[in-house]
Amino acid sequence: MSTKSQSVAGFHTLRQIESSKIFQGAVIAIIILSALTIGAKTYDLPALVEQTLTVLDNAITVFFLVEILFRFAACPAKRRFLLDGWNLFDTLVVIGSLIPLDNSDAVLLGRLLRIFRVLRLVSVVPELRFLINSLLKAIPRMGYIALLMFIIFYIYAAMGAMFFSHIDETLWGDVAIAMLTLFRVATFEDWTDVMYATMEHYPLSWLYYLTFIFLTAFIFLNMMIGAILEVMSEEQNARAAQQAHDERDEIARQLRAVQEQLQELSRQVGDRQE
Amino acid sequence: MSTKSQSVAGFHTLRQIESSKIFQGAVIAIIILSALTIGAKTYDLPALVEQTLTVLDNAITVFFLVEILFRFAACPAKRRFLLDGWNLFDTLVVIGSLIPLDNSDAVLLGRLLRIFRVLRLVSVVPELRFLINSLLKAIPRMGYIALLMFIIFYIYAAMGAMFFSHIDETLWGDVAIAMLTLFRVATFEDWTDVMYATMEHYPLSWLYYLTFIFLTAFIFLNMMIGAILEVMSEEQNARAAQQAHDERDEIARQLRAVQEQLQELSRQVGDRQE
Amino acid sequence: MSTKSQSVAGFHTLRQIESSKIFQGAVIAIIILSALTIGAKTYDLPALVEQTLTVLDNAITVFFLVEILFRFAACPAKRRFLLDGWNLFDTLVVIGSLIPLDNSDAVLLGRLLRIFRVLRLVSVVPELRFLINSLLKAIPRMGYIALLMFIIFYIYAAMGAMFFSHIDETLWGDVAIAMLTLFRVATFEDWTDVMYATMEHYPLSWLYYLTFIFLTAFIFLNMMIGAILEVMSEEQNARAAQQAHDERDEIARQLRAVQEQLQELSRQVGDRQE
Amino acid sequence: MSTKSQSVAGFHTLRQIESSKIFQGAVIAIIILSALTIGAKTYDLPALVEQTLTVLDNAITVFFLVEILFRFAACPAKRRFLLDGWNLFDTLVVIGSLIPLDNSDAVLLGRLLRIFRVLRLVSVVPELRFLINSLLKAIPRMGYIALLMFIIFYIYAAMGAMFFSHIDETLWGDVAIAMLTLFRVATFEDWTDVMYATMEHYPLSWLYYLTFIFLTAFIFLNMMIGAILEVMSEEQNARAAQQAHDERDEIARQLRAVQEQLQELSRQVGDRQE
Repeated sequence: MSTKSQSVAGFHTLRQIESSKIFQGAVIAIIILSALTIGAKTYDLPALVEQTLTVLDNAITVFFLVEILFRFAACPAKRRFLLDGWNLFDTLVVIGSLIPLDNSDAVLLGRLLRIFRVLRLVSVVPELRFLINSLLKAIPRMGYIALLMFIIFYIYAAMGAMFFSHIDETLWGDVAIAMLTLFRVATFEDWTDVMYATMEHYPLSWLYYLTFIFLTAFIFLNMMIGAILEVMSEEQNARAAQQAHDERDEIARQLRAVQEQLQELSRQVGDRQE
Repeated sequence: MSTKSQSVAGFHTLRQIESSKIFQGAVIAIIILSALTIGAKTYDLPALVEQTLTVLDNAITVFFLVEILFRFAACPAKRRFLLDGWNLFDTLVVIGSLIPLDNSDAVLLGRLLRIFRVLRLVSVVPELRFLINSLLKAIPRMGYIALLMFIIFYIYAAMGAMFFSHIDETLWGDVAIAMLTLFRVATFEDWTDVMYATMEHYPLSWLYYLTFIFLTAFIFLNMMIGAILEVMSEEQNARAAQQAHDERDEIARQLRAVQEQLQELSRQVGDRQE
Repeated sequence: MSTKSQSVAGFHTLRQIESSKIFQGAVIAIIILSALTIGAKTYDLPALVEQTLTVLDNAITVFFLVEILFRFAACPAKRRFLLDGWNLFDTLVVIGSLIPLDNSDAVLLGRLLRIFRVLRLVSVVPELRFLINSLLKAIPRMGYIALLMFIIFYIYAAMGAMFFSHIDETLWGDVAIAMLTLFRVATFEDWTDVMYATMEHYPLSWLYYLTFIFLTAFIFLNMMIGAILEVMSEEQNARAAQQAHDERDEIARQLRAVQEQLQELSRQVGDRQE
Repeated sequence: MSTKSQSVAGFHTLRQIESSKIFQGAVIAIIILSALTIGAKTYDLPALVEQTLTVLDNAITVFFLVEILFRFAACPAKRRFLLDGWNLFDTLVVIGSLIPLDNSDAVLLGRLLRIFRVLRLVSVVPELRFLINSLLKAIPRMGYIALLMFIIFYIYAAMGAMFFSHIDETLWGDVAIAMLTLFRVATFEDWTDVMYATMEHYPLSWLYYLTFIFLTAFIFLNMMIGAILEVMSEEQNARAAQQAHDERDEIARQLRAVQEQLQELSRQVGDRQE
């Protein structure tokens, strides 16, 4: 047996292991364990448990490193491994976990990246990956609506910062703070307190809030209706087309049979004529 | 007359009684009475009324016990009686009501189980039972969305507990408390108070809240749209298929008539030829 | 000319006046004026204006009385005049306005009934009447969902009153107050304050609130989806049936033409045969 | 070359420049710059930056003036230039920006009009213009619902002002203030505080709030469902009609072929007969 065929056989074994239920299950189990250690660290724990968690954390990091190398080895097209978004994400999270937690500067970043390891659950469970992909597809159709919303927020924030900044500096100090305040108004969170404060100086300022609320609610509502209709019409167009096609096929088939019968009849009549 | 035919006749009478309008109405009336006694007990009442309520409560318990035994007797397949979810639920609630209320330890449990007797209304009124069944069918399609939501809550809660726990222990103390706080933020309940508190230490922490709100709102919105579309396409697929089928049938019937006419004509021409 | 034909001609004139644009416009104008006087009375006004408003109010009452008598006179089927819900409503509101406002006991009731005169706008403008009718049609389909919601509220309220009444008597005192508190929780109005108070005694009581919120939100969501689908399928069934019908008609017409041609041909062949 | 043909060539060049990508891009860039200067002015800035911003602001005003004159020159039908809503809006905003900011009376108006320059982004980006147009189309279908909502608000506000004005003058003082308070209740913003205050005087006043909330929520929900259905049925009617038309065309074409074959056959049989 040559080295090449051995390597091919080895590669085949790797792929079999990678796509096996047991391997997938082990990876999911380790990710959930990783999530639990992250959660456990937010509690006040005795020193012994803390140390155990640190050891466990390092073990998980090593496991993830081995797993990603294993998956890289099992990947048939090595060059395109990182072009797949999910692989890139997994690799970055694993590399991020390698940052040592001793250095006090990098400790927060390291812990933050460890939290993102929970997201690996999404990249491993196919149903969640499919869900995320379909959510990402929904983003572009909301692009211009989002831009329009931003323009409305910006204009109202500029007006708010211009008129109300002397009333409450913490709410209307500049255009950025005013936009945050307007987002608060849009979520109806204690918006009347904000309004009553400005109505003491400008009694008509309720007009500002009501027009803003109606505008954002109206645009949001239309966006939602638009989104429902767009997705629906896409699905239904396809379905309606399929239905029409099937029906036409059936009818066309029968009509062809009629035409053939007529041709036969025509031939019969022609035969007699000769 | 033999004993067997007597028992068959008796069984037949039982079933007739059980499915009669009067029996059903009496059961519903007693359940509503049971609900009213449960409600009445939450008021401060004179001792005499309290005693009357206790007597009434025992009478209702006896009635329910008799009713369930009666329904068991009227059930044609005794072995499968408890396999039906609604029967099992009724039986458990009735057995739970038998716990005596004298023992101070079990008194709360007994009272709690008495409250669940109100739910028997759902198991008795067929329309409510149908409604619950259709609600239960809607759960699986929300499974992965719920899992995704949980992952997002968990990641944000871990980040929140890591960065904000020193600011407000009661809001961000550990990952579980932080998840509760995030649920509060997701319902827009005084979320700006939570945000302003953390913005004093981390001026950029509004990013944390806004990304969280947008993520959850975006996923929730897409879940809703998805649910509408899924139910709709199921219903409409069936309907569209039925319509296409009916139309094809009609056309096919007429085309067959044409083909028969042609065959007849062909036969006529052939006859002449001979 | 006989008295009868005179009365017929008079009746015809009445109907013409009643259905004229000017009459309709005048009624709408008076209703709006009536609404404005009701609104004006809520302000602190000088005595002279108050007196003018009272005179105006009496004049409007007389106008409405004359108008309803006029409409009764113009009604062709006098016996069924009050069977129409809108006529009955108008009559009750006008009769209610006749209560004198001097008596201090009836003054509030009289003023209240005057407010309902604004609702006459709905009974006069056909588009609003149509809107209300279509809203009323939507009520029955929400009946069982509303009952289910009530059962859930009742059960949770009974539990709340049982466990939390010693914590806050004003929020959980009895089952009725507890239901109001739960409605508050369902609208997310300061619900965390309610929860934090009970969590001090029962640390696990967040389960009570979260299950309640999820249950009500889940049922509400499904109710909404159900309502959309029901209205939609009704409309679309009718439309789809119409479309299928039209298509079948067209095809059937053409197939009949083919069959006629075939019969003609068959006759021709038969003729030659003889 | 004559003056006329020169002017035609010049006009052609103007149009080419106006519709070029570079010109469009420059205008969008200047609008964004204008928006940034408006935002920047809401911050406390050193005097030098303030002066730079004023110079920049004037430069932008001149640019917009030149741009609008340029677009007017490039417009083939000068008389109808201002009849287009977007052109009229642009012109008004630019003229408004010419108000000098020295005069302290007009300074606020001038600054306000400068803020509206951000809206020019909508008039310049075709996708946003399309979005606004489609939003405007959605307004009429909400007209009668809005009127009905207003009537309900007015009636409840009149009742509120009548019964509750002595409890809290700032919430229920007159019918206008009461409508604002009811809008607050409709957004669930601290509505229980308002209710608890009135329940101290009128223990049954929760009925007032609950019926109001149910009415507005119910009408809002039905409005949303109605809007979805209306837009959907419009789209789907068109689509269904197209589909039916296409299918009928196809079938009709095939049936015509059958009829032609039959005519040919009939002619053949007839020929033989002679």
